[in-house]
Amino acid sequence: MSATDLPAPDHEPEPSALDPAIAARLRRDPNGLVAAVVREHTTGDVLMLAWMDDEALHRTLTTRRATYWSRSRQEYWVKGATSGHHQYVRSVAVDCDGDALLVTVEQAGAACHTGTPTCFSTELPVSDPAEDS
Amino acid sequence: MSATDLPAPDHEPEPSALDPAIAARLRRDPNGLVAAVVREHTTGDVLMLAWMDDEALHRTLTTRRATYWSRSRQEYWVKGATSGHHQYVRSVAVDCDGDALLVTVEQAGAACHTGTPTCFSTELPVSDPAEDS
Repeated sequence: MSATDLPAPDHEPEPSALDPAIAARLRRDPNGLVAAVVREHTTGDVLMLAWMDDEALHRTLTTRRATYWSRSRQEYWVKGATSGHHQYVRSVAVDCDGDALLVTVEQAGAACHTGTPTCFSTELPVSDPAEDS
Repeated sequence: MSATDLPAPDHEPEPSALDPAIAARLRRDPNGLVAAVVREHTTGDVLMLAWMDDEALHRTLTTRRATYWSRSRQEYWVKGATSGHHQYVRSVAVDCDGDALLVTVEQAGAACHTGTPTCFSTELPVSDPAEDS
């Protein structure tokens, strides 16, 4: 069977060069993804939430350019590749149960595609804290 | 058909008193959930990632006690109810595409069930930044 006979992949986690010791720590969702919380190095601001599979994490760790899996476009996405709003990776941590990453970056320009510094720019109303007093 | 004829729900988003204007902003996953990034008010540290359905968000906004949906236990979970490590909610923001929340809290004690201050305590190795220079 030649390569052209292979069925088109339906985002199965593809073979990745991710360090097996790191891969073993991950607890992926049914689509092979973990959540990536992105934080700005200098300000500590939480910028956005995105998703990574093993290969996106491998690329992020080895290129120091934040790379995600786009669920809507079903493709890898190097942040800033089209916008110029690059994320230069300073550090990456995994959480206690392996289903979330914290990616600390130097953010060039606006993190959000709407042009705001972070994606979390709409505050929701929280009740009066009368019961706290 | 009487109420007792209704099939048992399989965590369908249950009727919630969440403000319909807020509910309309949310873009839930197939389980009716959005991701909640939790940040400490004083330090700005990212503490953990959890999940909310409409009712968990409603309870969080109206009681000011961070309340999540536990995917493993399939029940609501008021952070600190058993551990005493309460999260007193200062603010909640929704992101640009409605699938993530940023919950800013005053954290009592350790956020992580392992006893560490945050759940993101395992750093992953990032390549040498030679290419950045």
